[in-house]
Amino acid sequence: MKAIVLREVGGPESLRYEEVETPKPQAGEVLVKLKYAALNRRDVFISKGMYPGMKLPSILGADGAGDIAAIGENVQDIQVGSEVVIDSGIGWGEDQRISNPNFYILGMPVDGTYAQYISVPAINIYPKPKHLTWEETASLPLAGVTAYRALVVRGQLQAGETVLIPGIGSGVALFVLQMAVAKGAKVFVTSSSEEKIERAKSMGAVGGVNYRLPDWSKQLRKLMGAADLVVDGVGGPGFNQLLNLTKEGGRIVSYGATNGAVPEFMLQWIFLKNIDLRGTKMGSPQQFAEMLDFMSQQKIRPVIDCSFPLEKAAEAQLYMDQGKNFGKITLEIPQ
Amino acid sequence: MKAIVLREVGGPESLRYEEVETPKPQAGEVLVKLKYAALNRRDVFISKGMYPGMKLPSILGADGAGDIAAIGENVQDIQVGSEVVIDSGIGWGEDQRISNPNFYILGMPVDGTYAQYISVPAINIYPKPKHLTWEETASLPLAGVTAYRALVVRGQLQAGETVLIPGIGSGVALFVLQMAVAKGAKVFVTSSSEEKIERAKSMGAVGGVNYRLPDWSKQLRKLMGAADLVVDGVGGPGFNQLLNLTKEGGRIVSYGATNGAVPEFMLQWIFLKNIDLRGTKMGSPQQFAEMLDFMSQQKIRPVIDCSFPLEKAAEAQLYMDQGKNFGKITLEIPQ
Repeated sequence: MKAIVLREVGGPESLRYEEVETPKPQAGEVLVKLKYAALNRRDVFISKGMYPGMKLPSILGADGAGDIAAIGENVQDIQVGSEVVIDSGIGWGEDQRISNPNFYILGMPVDGTYAQYISVPAINIYPKPKHLTWEETASLPLAGVTAYRALVVRGQLQAGETVLIPGIGSGVALFVLQMAVAKGAKVFVTSSSEEKIERAKSMGAVGGVNYRLPDWSKQLRKLMGAADLVVDGVGGPGFNQLLNLTKEGGRIVSYGATNGAVPEFMLQWIFLKNIDLRGTKMGSPQQFAEMLDFMSQQKIRPVIDCSFPLEKAAEAQLYMDQGKNFGKITLEIPQ
Repeated sequence: MKAIVLREVGGPESLRYEEVETPKPQAGEVLVKLKYAALNRRDVFISKGMYPGMKLPSILGADGAGDIAAIGENVQDIQVGSEVVIDSGIGWGEDQRISNPNFYILGMPVDGTYAQYISVPAINIYPKPKHLTWEETASLPLAGVTAYRALVVRGQLQAGETVLIPGIGSGVALFVLQMAVAKGAKVFVTSSSEEKIERAKSMGAVGGVNYRLPDWSKQLRKLMGAADLVVDGVGGPGFNQLLNLTKEGGRIVSYGATNGAVPEFMLQWIFLKNIDLRGTKMGSPQQFAEMLDFMSQQKIRPVIDCSFPLEKAAEAQLYMDQGKNFGKITLEIPQ
C-alpha cells in the first residue's frame, strides 16, 4: 500500500511517500481501508521530533475514516464493508479522568492514518455519522474528542454562559465554538485575523477581538464582560489576560499551549478570584462516543479548510505550520 | 478603650497604641469584649499599604474571641456574657463558591480585633469551641476557614490520599496539616527549617524536605511519590516543581502566594497531566461553621507560636514578617 512514512525527524520536508507492506489485522483488530485522513498539530510536532517518546520509522496520522476491509480473530458485530470512523486513542482504560500509563495515539509510536490501510483494535471503531461526508468524518476524532472533553466534561458548560475561545481557527477551537453555540452559550473569540473573527461570527460567535491590538484585552472586556468559561489552546504571554477576563469563580480549561509557557504567571488572580484552571488531554472511549452522539444530534459539520492528496502530506503539514488555516486540513487517500 | 490604630502606612512600626472611643453596637450587631486577637499575614500587608482598597485610619486585626458585652436592637438568641468567636468575613452572601462584591474582612476597611472591644454583626458570632483556650479560639477564624475551604471544599480530600503542604509553619499551613492528618491523609511538607519539618512530623506528617536543597523536588519525589493534592500558599519560582510533584489527574489548591508570581509557568504540565489548579480565598459562613464543627469533633488545637501584649502589636507583626514562627502569633488584650 501507499503511505507517508517518517524515517527521521527534520520537519514536514522529511515525510516520504512510499510503498510499504499492507498491515494484517491481528486478533481483536480490524483492517480499515481509509478514504480520508486529517492533520493535527501533533503530527507536525512529531515530524519535527518535538514530541515525547519519539520512535521511528512510523506512518504518521491520528485521524481517519473508511470502510472495514478485513476482520481479525475474536471480533464480533462488525461486518466487512461497514463505514467507520476510528477513535485515535488506544488503551485509555477505565478511569474517565486520566488515561492509563501505556495509552497512546495512532501515528507514532504505532503506524497511523496517512496510509491506504490501517489495522486497529475493533473497540476503536465507531459507525460513521450519517450526516457527514467522508472528509468531514475523518476530521472528527482527535480534535472532536479534545474539544468535547474540554468544553463539556472538564469545562461543564451550562446554557446561557459566556465562553471565550482564544485563537479561533484551529480544529479544536472551531469544534469548541460549534459545540458551545449548540449548547446555547454566548461565545466570543480572539484571532490575529479579522477574517477569522468574521467567519467565527457567521458560525454563531457573538463577537471577537484581534489579539494583535495592544489593548485587545480591554476591548474584549468591553465587548464581552467577563467569561464564565475560557477554553484555551494557546497559552504563552497572553495567558495572564485570560485570568483577567474570567469571572470570579469562573473556569479556564487548558488543552494546549502553542505559544508555550506563561512568563510571570499571576497566580494571585487564581486565588483572589477563586478561579479553576483545569488541564485536559484527549478523551476516553466513553467521551469519544458521547462526542459522536452530540455531533449527530446537533448536526454539527466540521469546518474543512482544504484538502491535499495523500502524497502531498508534506505540503499539507507546511501549510498547517503557517497557522493560516480556518478548520481542518485533510488528506485524500488514493482508492 | 485601648486599640492599635494604623493612621498611615509604613510597616509594623507605624502601628500606634491609642485610647479611642469604645464602639456601640448598632441594630443587628453585638459588642464583643475581646480576650485575645491573633495575627494574619494580611495585617502585615495592610500595615505596609500592600492591600487592595486601603482606607485609613483603621484598627487592624481580623481574628478575635471574647465575651458578649452588649447587644444592639433586633438581635435574638444571644445573651450578654456568652463566650464567642468571630467570623471575620462580613457580607459573604448566598453563593458558596464566591463572595459578594461588597464582602470585606474585619481590620481595614472597618475596625478590627486589635482592641478591647469590637462591634460586629450578630450573625458573625459563633459559640467558642469548648475544647479550646481563649488564645486558641482567637487563632481560629481567618486561617481556620481558609484551610478548611482549601483542603476540604476546594481540595476535596479523601482519606488515604497523599497531600503535600509547601512551606509548613504558617497558620493556614498548620491547620491544613492538622485537618489532613485528622482526615486520614498521608501528609508531606516542605520548609527551609529542619526544625519545622521535625515539628510537622511530630504532628503526624509522614515526612518532609528542606526546599533550600538544590534537589529538594527530586528528594521529595523519592520520599513521597506524587501527591493527589497540593495545598499551597507560597507560589513563586518553586511552583513549577509542584506541578511536577502532582499525580496525573491530581489537584493543586492555591490560597496565597507569599513568594509572588510564577516565572515561566509550565502550563504544558497542567494539560499533559490533566491537573486541576483551584484558587480559593477565605470562606462562606457555612464553611466557617463546618470548620468549627470539624475542629470540635476532631479536637484539633491550633498551634500557638507565641503571644504579645496588645500594646506590642508592632513587635508581633515584625516577628511575623521574619517568617520564623511555627503557628499563630496572638495578642493578649488587657481586661
